[in-house]
Amino acid sequence: MHERLSHPLVPRFASREYDTETLSERCRWVEQATGANLSMVSAGTILAESMRGNIENPIGTVQMPVGVAGPLLVRGEHADGVFYVPLATTEGALVRSYERGMVLLTRVGGAEVRIERDENQICPVFQFESVASASAFSPFLAENFEELRRRAESTTNHGKLLAVDPLVVGRDVEVVFRYHTGDAHGMNMIVKATDAACRWLVEKSAALSYVLFSGLSSEKRPSARALLGGKGKKVSAGAEIPAKWVRLYLHTTPQAIRDLWQRTTIGNIMAGAVGYSGHYANGLTALFMACGQDVANVVNSVAGLTNFEVTPVGDLYASATLCSLVVATVGGGVDLGTSRECLEMLGCRGSGNARKLAEIVAATILAGELSFAGALGSGEFVAAHEEYGRNRPQA
Amino acid sequence: MHERLSHPLVPRFASREYDTETLSERCRWVEQATGANLSMVSAGTILAESMRGNIENPIGTVQMPVGVAGPLLVRGEHADGVFYVPLATTEGALVRSYERGMVLLTRVGGAEVRIERDENQICPVFQFESVASASAFSPFLAENFEELRRRAESTTNHGKLLAVDPLVVGRDVEVVFRYHTGDAHGMNMIVKATDAACRWLVEKSAALSYVLFSGLSSEKRPSARALLGGKGKKVSAGAEIPAKWVRLYLHTTPQAIRDLWQRTTIGNIMAGAVGYSGHYANGLTALFMACGQDVANVVNSVAGLTNFEVTPVGDLYASATLCSLVVATVGGGVDLGTSRECLEMLGCRGSGNARKLAEIVAATILAGELSFAGALGSGEFVAAHEEYGRNRPQA
Amino acid sequence: MHERLSHPLVPRFASREYDTETLSERCRWVEQATGANLSMVSAGTILAESMRGNIENPIGTVQMPVGVAGPLLVRGEHADGVFYVPLATTEGALVRSYERGMVLLTRVGGAEVRIERDENQICPVFQFESVASASAFSPFLAENFEELRRRAESTTNHGKLLAVDPLVVGRDVEVVFRYHTGDAHGMNMIVKATDAACRWLVEKSAALSYVLFSGLSSEKRPSARALLGGKGKKVSAGAEIPAKWVRLYLHTTPQAIRDLWQRTTIGNIMAGAVGYSGHYANGLTALFMACGQDVANVVNSVAGLTNFEVTPVGDLYASATLCSLVVATVGGGVDLGTSRECLEMLGCRGSGNARKLAEIVAATILAGELSFAGALGSGEFVAAHEEYGRNRPQA
Amino acid sequence: MHERLSHPLVPRFASREYDTETLSERCRWVEQATGANLSMVSAGTILAESMRGNIENPIGTVQMPVGVAGPLLVRGEHADGVFYVPLATTEGALVRSYERGMVLLTRVGGAEVRIERDENQICPVFQFESVASASAFSPFLAENFEELRRRAESTTNHGKLLAVDPLVVGRDVEVVFRYHTGDAHGMNMIVKATDAACRWLVEKSAALSYVLFSGLSSEKRPSARALLGGKGKKVSAGAEIPAKWVRLYLHTTPQAIRDLWQRTTIGNIMAGAVGYSGHYANGLTALFMACGQDVANVVNSVAGLTNFEVTPVGDLYASATLCSLVVATVGGGVDLGTSRECLEMLGCRGSGNARKLAEIVAATILAGELSFAGALGSGEFVAAHEEYGRNRPQA
Repeated sequence: MHERLSHPLVPRFASREYDTETLSERCRWVEQATGANLSMVSAGTILAESMRGNIENPIGTVQMPVGVAGPLLVRGEHADGVFYVPLATTEGALVRSYERGMVLLTRVGGAEVRIERDENQICPVFQFESVASASAFSPFLAENFEELRRRAESTTNHGKLLAVDPLVVGRDVEVVFRYHTGDAHGMNMIVKATDAACRWLVEKSAALSYVLFSGLSSEKRPSARALLGGKGKKVSAGAEIPAKWVRLYLHTTPQAIRDLWQRTTIGNIMAGAVGYSGHYANGLTALFMACGQDVANVVNSVAGLTNFEVTPVGDLYASATLCSLVVATVGGGVDLGTSRECLEMLGCRGSGNARKLAEIVAATILAGELSFAGALGSGEFVAAHEEYGRNRPQA
Repeated sequence: MHERLSHPLVPRFASREYDTETLSERCRWVEQATGANLSMVSAGTILAESMRGNIENPIGTVQMPVGVAGPLLVRGEHADGVFYVPLATTEGALVRSYERGMVLLTRVGGAEVRIERDENQICPVFQFESVASASAFSPFLAENFEELRRRAESTTNHGKLLAVDPLVVGRDVEVVFRYHTGDAHGMNMIVKATDAACRWLVEKSAALSYVLFSGLSSEKRPSARALLGGKGKKVSAGAEIPAKWVRLYLHTTPQAIRDLWQRTTIGNIMAGAVGYSGHYANGLTALFMACGQDVANVVNSVAGLTNFEVTPVGDLYASATLCSLVVATVGGGVDLGTSRECLEMLGCRGSGNARKLAEIVAATILAGELSFAGALGSGEFVAAHEEYGRNRPQA
Repeated sequence: MHERLSHPLVPRFASREYDTETLSERCRWVEQATGANLSMVSAGTILAESMRGNIENPIGTVQMPVGVAGPLLVRGEHADGVFYVPLATTEGALVRSYERGMVLLTRVGGAEVRIERDENQICPVFQFESVASASAFSPFLAENFEELRRRAESTTNHGKLLAVDPLVVGRDVEVVFRYHTGDAHGMNMIVKATDAACRWLVEKSAALSYVLFSGLSSEKRPSARALLGGKGKKVSAGAEIPAKWVRLYLHTTPQAIRDLWQRTTIGNIMAGAVGYSGHYANGLTALFMACGQDVANVVNSVAGLTNFEVTPVGDLYASATLCSLVVATVGGGVDLGTSRECLEMLGCRGSGNARKLAEIVAATILAGELSFAGALGSGEFVAAHEEYGRNRPQA
Repeated sequence: MHERLSHPLVPRFASREYDTETLSERCRWVEQATGANLSMVSAGTILAESMRGNIENPIGTVQMPVGVAGPLLVRGEHADGVFYVPLATTEGALVRSYERGMVLLTRVGGAEVRIERDENQICPVFQFESVASASAFSPFLAENFEELRRRAESTTNHGKLLAVDPLVVGRDVEVVFRYHTGDAHGMNMIVKATDAACRWLVEKSAALSYVLFSGLSSEKRPSARALLGGKGKKVSAGAEIPAKWVRLYLHTTPQAIRDLWQRTTIGNIMAGAVGYSGHYANGLTALFMACGQDVANVVNSVAGLTNFEVTPVGDLYASATLCSLVVATVGGGVDLGTSRECLEMLGCRGSGNARKLAEIVAATILAGELSFAGALGSGEFVAAHEEYGRNRPQA
């Protein structure tokens, strides 16, 4: 059907799709087609062959600056020690801002971190003939859970089906399939597993048909439900910070930060925001890009809540809770060149490290919230961006 | 104060912060501190000097694969022609998926694109003594708009203050400062401009104090308000697609896609999602990473709505509306090496091109929605990820 | 302390607070204080004594018109038969509109109704010293569930504690206490029961303190979480309606209604609405006021979703799902005069009838959605309000 | 078509629909059909004739207890003085709770109240052939505003069209028609006016068709957009309350109330609530039922935000902001018997009083928030409901 298209398709190269020469050839084709010079795109060091499974029509790599922030003392159950965190960004002042919070957290004994929940989910929707037959599906699911588990898990070595929770809407039933996916992101894994279970359900139950993604799971979508958890890891980081360190590092007081929290929470509520945070997206994006995470998952991972309290003795208790944090240390892009190296910086490369990574992320985010609150509370926000950002006056 | 910290700070190098040697030195320091081998991080080709203003504590660059998808025929007011779109990702099948939608759009005459709104905003909050004095602030703002505009614009060459809209909450007044920021992202610009205006307001009005970020603007935060627009560009892309092309390219029918829309919209509503979309985050993230955009802005840029309708003659009308899309072609990271080259691929490098870029983004997103709907509607989603993703069975 | 108040307090009458004479005396006092003539307020037939426990400072009763709509054929598990539904309202056209939908539902064999969930909840929040001790609370709750249940249920004859589900946010833990409350609304019951459990928890666990209402439960508040259920009964009503009856009763077609659904769903999504419905609030309010329900619970009871689908043969499948419907047939105001009589009209007076009432409510709401969709789809909305409303031209 | 229905229709009585005898006749018919005794429903004192335009199929009236709470000192621009407020409810402790807050507000000099915005809106949606033609509609609207205004206002004596604001979504354009509706609720009025304008638009512009209710306006629906105002009156009430009065009346401290606010705000945020409030729905419902308001509008009227701040000297500043409060003093049910009397109690009967009523409502709501916070903060919530509610132990 394509021959009639008036504009040329991107060339395909059959079996040799992922060798170096092909990549160059395609890159040259794009240069001709668009008039762009792609010499830096071509200059990357990720081998073409290693891109297989991660991208199609590859033409090279993009680069972005990576900086390091630390020390960050983390007191978690999986991450326990000092870390230097790689952050990829082009937003001036971002690394310095996170670093300030990290040093402060380290100074006061570190960020305490705990994981409340660790799972991934996918929510297919089943259609029935009537409200009554939809209603009868819930007990059917409960009775057949073992069979569903067997079928789902037959497709994967790592995914474990934890539960299936139905939600009836008229004559549709949306079903939350909850999995443990080990150290992998696991979407491909649980999509495949759930598809197998769904096929069996349509065959054996009154369900007429199904759609794999009902929209309920909020994968890569912002939603109120993401705050209630289940899409990835739910993690909290907290620290009690003596007033003197708040003054010294953040140039403000616990009371001022708490008042700021109150005032800006109102703005978030009026905006109908999902949760409350200062700038989770900045830290998450920078860390995800450095460490080869699926960066689109920042959209659900930002669902969370920062809290600043004044303790009875006048110190600050700060916490950050990420409700649907999706991170991985195996699969996806984590083994590609620089990603692998950045995960190594955190001691998080490979199996057994996803929860450790999640704890480091949560501590990092807390550091960023402290620094942001300090900048706003002390009125130094503009000055900081003047000094580090692109707009600064040249000497 | 730092000398007592038990863990070493990341070394600083005063005046020579951004030369190549310093970058290597810091990188070696990190290797020692963490035990990681950072040879690929060091192998980047972005010059240390050019990172100034974009990052602190640089240790090198991260790389990620970039592929090309196209042809994409766009019929906008700023982008009018065929484009080949760079997408940086490590999610297998993503490029192929967007490409399918692009070819389909091109086949049917292209995606029609229009920009409804183009502005950026920041929303400081002012505190007053009472509900009555807060209430009196709104007329004060209206009367003094010209003075505010003069003060705000005195700090910038490019930003134009369009309006100030107050929102009273008790004795606080949140004020939406709406700007046109040209081709730049413009946050630093409007932060500085607004700060100047706020200082004047606190001096001249009954306002007791202000905080620059009330939370109302939803910068990098997901919120219902982002759907109503104002944070960046609001853009719609649409196309009418004859049923035969739906069958040929998407292996399903307009009716099936519309029914799928209905079913999955319900899941999104039940989740309390912001808007409705298939997978905006995937395309936005891949394109933003390729083109040096501020990737954290994906969080607000995903606010939008996809619609699939069946026309009276049985064809498909598909549209995607992005309500708070933040893109730039000057400032930030757009000039750094590969970013510049990728923008060149789109003919979007430099001044005068931000709206063109926005239109290409919207058309790209529409392509992704079509392809995603096709994969779900035809039941081929799992198979596609098997073929292109990392989980595929090895031959 | 009151003697210094410059304005007189409403008189109190100690032990004889709820006798007829006192009520009159207070009413006369109000007439003098305000200058209003309260002769109709005084003319009510609810005995003063019977108001005890339902109101303080009583001065009489207010009256509002009540109409009847029906027949409504309900095919539920608790309500199975034909009903004539009392609706109290002053909005012209409301009764006629619901009646039209009811007759249509009856004509096509009735509304099928099913209850998915029946519980009430209250969500106290516990404060801890740190993220770590908050995290340890969840296993403590699980281990001590039997003790909690014993303590909670010791305060009530009817409430049953079903589960306690923790949700960690920083160093706070919000806990969903889920109860079955029989036929009563049950808030007072579960407040008291939960308070007893909370006191024990603060004594025995690391919790420092608690607040009974964390805000998470969305009692009488609109929220996304209310859509996910748990505040009251979750009920769905549905019916398949042949196209010919759609034409005859609603003057439109299944396709037109489905298209209308699609178009107006978009408006609801853009508004950040909780769920999607035509006008649930109208029917719920009218029925709640007639039947002595706690009308403020309409705010959570409106959380729900209406769906209109076209079947393969071109008929309409309509459904309405109420996710957090709070109704009662014992306790509160259900025994007061006219409320009791209106419940009798529905065969729902007293114990054992709350689920029956919930099913009738859901069928009523579905009737209203059908009629509303018909009015919009046929363009008759304005005409209907002209004919029945106050604005109609006089003959 | 009705003769074939197996269940009898509610009898109609043609021209004599609204006379006393007919009402009794229908009531007896319902008694026979349902077996209920409706003697109290029949005993109402609202004349059948006066129900015309407010209800169809009337069978009598329902009664509910009404109490009085006060004194409430209001310092608004329209309501300035002391009020005794009628509250209709069957929830024990509600009147006493509001009264406590009112006395406290009166003691400290009254609640200061201001109206920020006063309008009503309706949002039709227009369909176009393409994204481009939808996009062109916005300038068309702007150019033809005067014509639209003329056409809309030709249908009404009171409604004034203030503005039309378009919102493009794909090839749909939702248009916010903003009106001033005087002292009336005005929905019927603006529906009719907007319908006239829409018909003209479809005739003269590229719009293919329209639907009067897009869902965007959130009439009687909970939504994030309702917080941003426009559906009715936006009103704030506030008061500064010395710590000693907080202790004396609320048995707690400003700090404790502020901390409670912080803790429970988090619960509301996690629930995805619309705004933050203690129990707006209780006071609004009780006052609306007493005063003949359209009680279904409570659903949008609850959109708002309560704030509790501690002042520099340790006092409490409390405020309540209602963003979409819909109240009326003419039209609808406001003239029916007891409603008229209750409005008289507030000096709010008839034209020119809607804003005064709105200010009294806001002050009432603030009183309720204070009392609720006091009950929670002091731990007396359970005890208060024990004393006044139905569950109290009998002497």
